[in-house]
Amino acid sequence: MTIAIISGGVTAPQGFRAAGISAGIKRGAPGLDTQTEAAGPLDLALLVSDVPATAAAVFTTNLALAAPVLVSREHLTRSHGVARAIVVNSGCANACTGDEGMQAAREMAGETARLVGCPVEQVLVASTGVIGVALPIDKIRAGLPAAAAALSVDHGSAAALAIMTTDPFPKEAAVQIAIGGRTIDIGGMAKGSGMIEPMMATMLAFVTTDASVPKPLLDRALSEAVNDTFNAITVDGECSTNDCVMLLANGAAGATVDESSYADFVNGLRTVCRELALGIVRGGEGATKLITVRVTGAASASEARRAAKAIANSPLVKTAIHGGDPNWGRLIAAAGRGGVAFDLSRATVTIGPTVLFEDGRPYDEAAPRAAEYLRRTEIDVSVGLGAGSATSTVWTCDLSAEYVRINADYRT
Amino acid sequence: MTIAIISGGVTAPQGFRAAGISAGIKRGAPGLDTQTEAAGPLDLALLVSDVPATAAAVFTTNLALAAPVLVSREHLTRSHGVARAIVVNSGCANACTGDEGMQAAREMAGETARLVGCPVEQVLVASTGVIGVALPIDKIRAGLPAAAAALSVDHGSAAALAIMTTDPFPKEAAVQIAIGGRTIDIGGMAKGSGMIEPMMATMLAFVTTDASVPKPLLDRALSEAVNDTFNAITVDGECSTNDCVMLLANGAAGATVDESSYADFVNGLRTVCRELALGIVRGGEGATKLITVRVTGAASASEARRAAKAIANSPLVKTAIHGGDPNWGRLIAAAGRGGVAFDLSRATVTIGPTVLFEDGRPYDEAAPRAAEYLRRTEIDVSVGLGAGSATSTVWTCDLSAEYVRINADYRT
Repeated sequence: MTIAIISGGVTAPQGFRAAGISAGIKRGAPGLDTQTEAAGPLDLALLVSDVPATAAAVFTTNLALAAPVLVSREHLTRSHGVARAIVVNSGCANACTGDEGMQAAREMAGETARLVGCPVEQVLVASTGVIGVALPIDKIRAGLPAAAAALSVDHGSAAALAIMTTDPFPKEAAVQIAIGGRTIDIGGMAKGSGMIEPMMATMLAFVTTDASVPKPLLDRALSEAVNDTFNAITVDGECSTNDCVMLLANGAAGATVDESSYADFVNGLRTVCRELALGIVRGGEGATKLITVRVTGAASASEARRAAKAIANSPLVKTAIHGGDPNWGRLIAAAGRGGVAFDLSRATVTIGPTVLFEDGRPYDEAAPRAAEYLRRTEIDVSVGLGAGSATSTVWTCDLSAEYVRINADYRT
Repeated sequence: MTIAIISGGVTAPQGFRAAGISAGIKRGAPGLDTQTEAAGPLDLALLVSDVPATAAAVFTTNLALAAPVLVSREHLTRSHGVARAIVVNSGCANACTGDEGMQAAREMAGETARLVGCPVEQVLVASTGVIGVALPIDKIRAGLPAAAAALSVDHGSAAALAIMTTDPFPKEAAVQIAIGGRTIDIGGMAKGSGMIEPMMATMLAFVTTDASVPKPLLDRALSEAVNDTFNAITVDGECSTNDCVMLLANGAAGATVDESSYADFVNGLRTVCRELALGIVRGGEGATKLITVRVTGAASASEARRAAKAIANSPLVKTAIHGGDPNWGRLIAAAGRGGVAFDLSRATVTIGPTVLFEDGRPYDEAAPRAAEYLRRTEIDVSVGLGAGSATSTVWTCDLSAEYVRINADYRT
């Protein structure tokens, strides 16, 4: 199977239109000027499928669920997995906002449904920004008609900009694959856990395809692709109240994914999700390096993943790599405290192509070569646990003083 | 019961002598000058009981166990919990050093046994410093006679200095309590997870008492005290290959702890351990604030602890408090992702005396008062999970740019 990388994002697949406008939600923004939509930073995104699309989503495992997560989950159930539109605001997470927050999320969906002309349960909502601050629903209500008017196949990038908080760059990706003799597109956009100001830390991703995908296959495909991509990245080990990945399949390309083409579809979907996920890590707060952590020799896949996450979230590993220090002892120590089967006498540590520890013995003479390698901006490290044959790959970024500065800034 | 705080450390209890000398193990140290023991930084500590003492110890849960941990564990088993001496070096962790490292740890114990005049299994060893570098056993062998010669009840503080790596200050504590009508002392010293250079991160603590304590009670007392103190602190969530807490009871005060006086003994022991543990947090890398995290309303004690650790290790919480930001949303989000029962509609967040979130609703007007409180150097935060009645207290420090600088420094 060939996966062709193409340009564009959520509007690359046929039958999707998007918009990104300024509704004045972001702090310090001048607010919506109805004469000039671009008066302030973009903070309201709308994504619409021309026809009802099959919809799948995965949400944060955080128990402090934000109102838009609760509403989107409820809508997916009520609509039996069908959606026409996704509406997203940045600048306010609408989390920890009580009944009032639920009311605001419902109104955001309701107003979108009215403008798009669909049942309210076919609208999914997402928010990202400050926790515990009331959603300025008046600004969203005032901004939505402009967003609806701006909907266009050319405005996918505006939508990708409008969902950003402190992301240093927008994240879009799209691929083209063949399904049943026809070409279909899969496109997506995401925002990372950058923060304009403290209390913002949300990962959102929205993926579209013009293939037709039956709901059970769509759910399975999203779950599989997310497990290897969005669930395999970490910036600081935090998990927000608003995280979600949503996937719409509208069938506009006239091809249907079935069991025989499922694997190809998942490969394409995984490619889009991986590109977006790595973009989130590259744009992580204060990040200067993308680090690929590979764990081998684990007793099981879940233990491999747990060890890889322990390494990827270790502040000592992340600061060492930030400083260009081939500090393999920290990788061993992080693996050893991960609560997984581990045999020190058979463990290995590799930084780039250089083996630094093998069969219980260090190769300190290799340190200068590893230090040279660590000057790169894309780093591979690998730890063998010596306890089995399972593997896992996780992506993370380095931990810099800039991360602290971004997150210690006084909020008020 | 009265617990009197007294000055001193491991030699406060009767019948213990200690020494701290320079053996030239620390990097950049000029090495042992036999003419002037203080020629370099202190890096070799010796603690000896005049008579065989009952011994208990807890060791790191990291599976990459350092050689001294393996040897000490073996000795405790072979001696049936009896020890005469503890020998500790800083500057080299003797971890990930293979068979050679085991040999060096055995030799360190053997040479100490010869000088003290006891069976080798009555010597416990500990090391802290760089991982993966061979222990300079020649320097230790050369230094031990000087350490033995320097043993004195007045040299407890020298020992406390000799076990330090980058700890900004030594940590000693002692208390006096009454057991069966007699006064007994409990004293201790500890080092924290500061680092002179990357790859050092070990917590060591050594506690003595002149009470006589039967081995089963001593084990139980140490386990109880450690659970509420050393196991309730975190600087960066890392757990080293060398962590250990050792406790010697030599009976020199002529009082024996039994079931009736056990609770008093544990209270005294807990006081010493808490003082040492909080010293480790106060001296954490880059730390500027001591943070007490209290979780209430948990479904069980273990869930309370897990939620408290999730909050205490959250880089977003630690950076917010570093920046003086009353960022209660981060506390909620950290609790919510802790994998424990949590009811957002009944959750509460308190910073100092100020309630910021209660019954699902924020009190943003209280933020300025909380911000004022956060200017202190000792901070209390409290999160109610709304899921039960169990509680837990954990201590941590803030996360500063200085932490990153310390740990990103290039090692070679």
